[in-house]
Amino acid sequence: MISEKMKGLVAGNSVIRAMFEEGKKMAKEFGRENVYDFSLGNPSVRPPKEVREAMVKILETEDENYVHGYMSNGGYEEVREKIAASLNKRFGTHLAGKNILMTVGAAGGLNVILKTLLNPGDEVLTFTPFFVEYRNYVNNFDGVLVQLPVNFAGGFRPDPEALAAAITPKTKALIVNTPNNPTGVVYSAEDITKIADVLRAKQEEYGTEIYLIADEPYRELAYDGVEVPYLTNFYDNTIVGYSYSKSLSLPGERIGYLVIPDEVTDADTVIAGATVANRILGFVNAPSLIQLTVAECLDSEVDVAAYDRNRKLLYESLIGMGYHCIKPEGAFYLFVETPVDDKAFSEKAKEEHLLVVPGSSFGCANYVRIAYCVDYDMIERSLPAFRRVAEYYGLA
Amino acid sequence: MISEKMKGLVAGNSVIRAMFEEGKKMAKEFGRENVYDFSLGNPSVRPPKEVREAMVKILETEDENYVHGYMSNGGYEEVREKIAASLNKRFGTHLAGKNILMTVGAAGGLNVILKTLLNPGDEVLTFTPFFVEYRNYVNNFDGVLVQLPVNFAGGFRPDPEALAAAITPKTKALIVNTPNNPTGVVYSAEDITKIADVLRAKQEEYGTEIYLIADEPYRELAYDGVEVPYLTNFYDNTIVGYSYSKSLSLPGERIGYLVIPDEVTDADTVIAGATVANRILGFVNAPSLIQLTVAECLDSEVDVAAYDRNRKLLYESLIGMGYHCIKPEGAFYLFVETPVDDKAFSEKAKEEHLLVVPGSSFGCANYVRIAYCVDYDMIERSLPAFRRVAEYYGLA
Repeated sequence: MISEKMKGLVAGNSVIRAMFEEGKKMAKEFGRENVYDFSLGNPSVRPPKEVREAMVKILETEDENYVHGYMSNGGYEEVREKIAASLNKRFGTHLAGKNILMTVGAAGGLNVILKTLLNPGDEVLTFTPFFVEYRNYVNNFDGVLVQLPVNFAGGFRPDPEALAAAITPKTKALIVNTPNNPTGVVYSAEDITKIADVLRAKQEEYGTEIYLIADEPYRELAYDGVEVPYLTNFYDNTIVGYSYSKSLSLPGERIGYLVIPDEVTDADTVIAGATVANRILGFVNAPSLIQLTVAECLDSEVDVAAYDRNRKLLYESLIGMGYHCIKPEGAFYLFVETPVDDKAFSEKAKEEHLLVVPGSSFGCANYVRIAYCVDYDMIERSLPAFRRVAEYYGLA
Repeated sequence: MISEKMKGLVAGNSVIRAMFEEGKKMAKEFGRENVYDFSLGNPSVRPPKEVREAMVKILETEDENYVHGYMSNGGYEEVREKIAASLNKRFGTHLAGKNILMTVGAAGGLNVILKTLLNPGDEVLTFTPFFVEYRNYVNNFDGVLVQLPVNFAGGFRPDPEALAAAITPKTKALIVNTPNNPTGVVYSAEDITKIADVLRAKQEEYGTEIYLIADEPYRELAYDGVEVPYLTNFYDNTIVGYSYSKSLSLPGERIGYLVIPDEVTDADTVIAGATVANRILGFVNAPSLIQLTVAECLDSEVDVAAYDRNRKLLYESLIGMGYHCIKPEGAFYLFVETPVDDKAFSEKAKEEHLLVVPGSSFGCANYVRIAYCVDYDMIERSLPAFRRVAEYYGLA
């Protein structure tokens, strides 16, 4: 009796979420220490201590009806202004509070901006592999997600020629995700300049607006000193979706924001539309206490070095066992080639109590995603299992 | 450059939200104490002290990655089980944790269940006057909101004959809201029995499923000992959307739940669908800390007596001035007849710094909604302004 659309979605429910549920079951059956769950991007590193300190202080000193009450649908004005000022300082932008819209995480923000922009049939492009939920978010508003081909030769970097070839008069947006889930690639200034050049040329060619939507939950997770350029500085029609889920280890709290700069065409209308969308999609506003909390923690971040230690241990160990993968520069995923079909590989891995996500969930078969936002000692304990799988497939 | 749908929505933006913004501006211009903002249902009564106590205790004693981390999309299992047990105790239901889906407020819950159920063109009925956002929520999924006629003669009670006349083979759901926004009417067991009888007969006549969706943010706000019956006890295909926004004065925190009882046809599929909808609409899960917090406050509620004092003062004062309205039994609104067009009346009221919402926003012209979830002394200070408006229209 559920809708036709939903029937299909229930049948093909998220592989990642299904693994998360399976991991919990296996932990009960075999003991938590004997299951190596690399399936979900659920941060293992603790939130910085400033989060709890700020939260308790707000609860103890601020008026409760302010802390827990309604505010404007776009968020507390003072929170939006603080975030704008912080971004301006870090990235040389020229944002005001009105350019920031507080959202229920980046997932909420992406839905809000797609609801705001998409007419039925509009095309939204994304480079493959891509975060599986983009397809659902675009489908929510009857748009069409167009996967750009995988750039194997270029190490999963964005391919501007493939982008140019895919843009049509129906193209409304390109979603990019850097640092990238699932590959760990960080787009360089050169990558972004090339993307921006293509988008500008195509806007002119077709007389359309093409929005660059930057999904940035992993912005603060970059290693080896690699720079993560701020995309609004490269292309006017850029909208950023940010989340504190990873930078402050708060994924359950559902807090993030959209940046809609004045350089976006008809920015005030887009901002007004996004504010209405935030309300009518049922978010109403981003949760209130956590809005006030993150505004007090704008200079804090989780212990990124802990993820870096995980990255090095897992990457070097797997390479040493004969696995193939590019070295990730950001986020907390390894995207590893599989010697057989990715689903068969992940089933074999599960026999060894290793939970990894088939790459076909990201539009890229014959790879698996391994989320290393886990305890260091779980990685250590899991290595014999990875080795047994490698030996089974004769990788070494 | 925003979507066609959104253009219309931005143009006709929420009158209530526009007033909330206007009230903030007027407070700056004339001084907060000289503006009488009765526009928004933003609770004035403080959350019960147990909320802050529970929150601080959770922050101080529980593992942070548990408190702020991802959990199943339906919410923490232990929270869902506690809520089910509490409902079973209060209302004699037979719910388990799996029948409870934690949501981003009732607004989030309604969007989730409508996304789950509606095919394009499906009809959703509601009694008029109705909460204005229902139309947007139904439109989000290409459903058609059908307003049932206003039952003026019956004091805004639900009219089962009008309901029966409006149901077609395309009818997928009836949304009811008791205690009611904007009228304050509480549906009696007799009212609900009649509604259930009609729905059952029509399900049989058409061989369809018709869901009764109970939107219950005001459940705990009832006065004079009036009973608020639990709707799942009257009709199998009932789904409840609850919110803690008013019962615990936490509207900004966005926390509520859906109840999908086993008595619903194909309940497991509906639950699975709603869980997926919660994820892909971008809610992902209800905010985490506040989930854990409300589970510790299931026997707490705000000081309902404070709203009752407001109700009596405002109702009796306005009646004494010559205004006409039914005495509300629940929620925190008066729905007052206007001697002229409701928009003209509310403009006149604004000249006296009184902000009230035209009834046409609820599908019922020639009335205004006055939200009395405000400070008692603001009501006292506002009375001369209401009197001047009454005198202007010669009501007394």
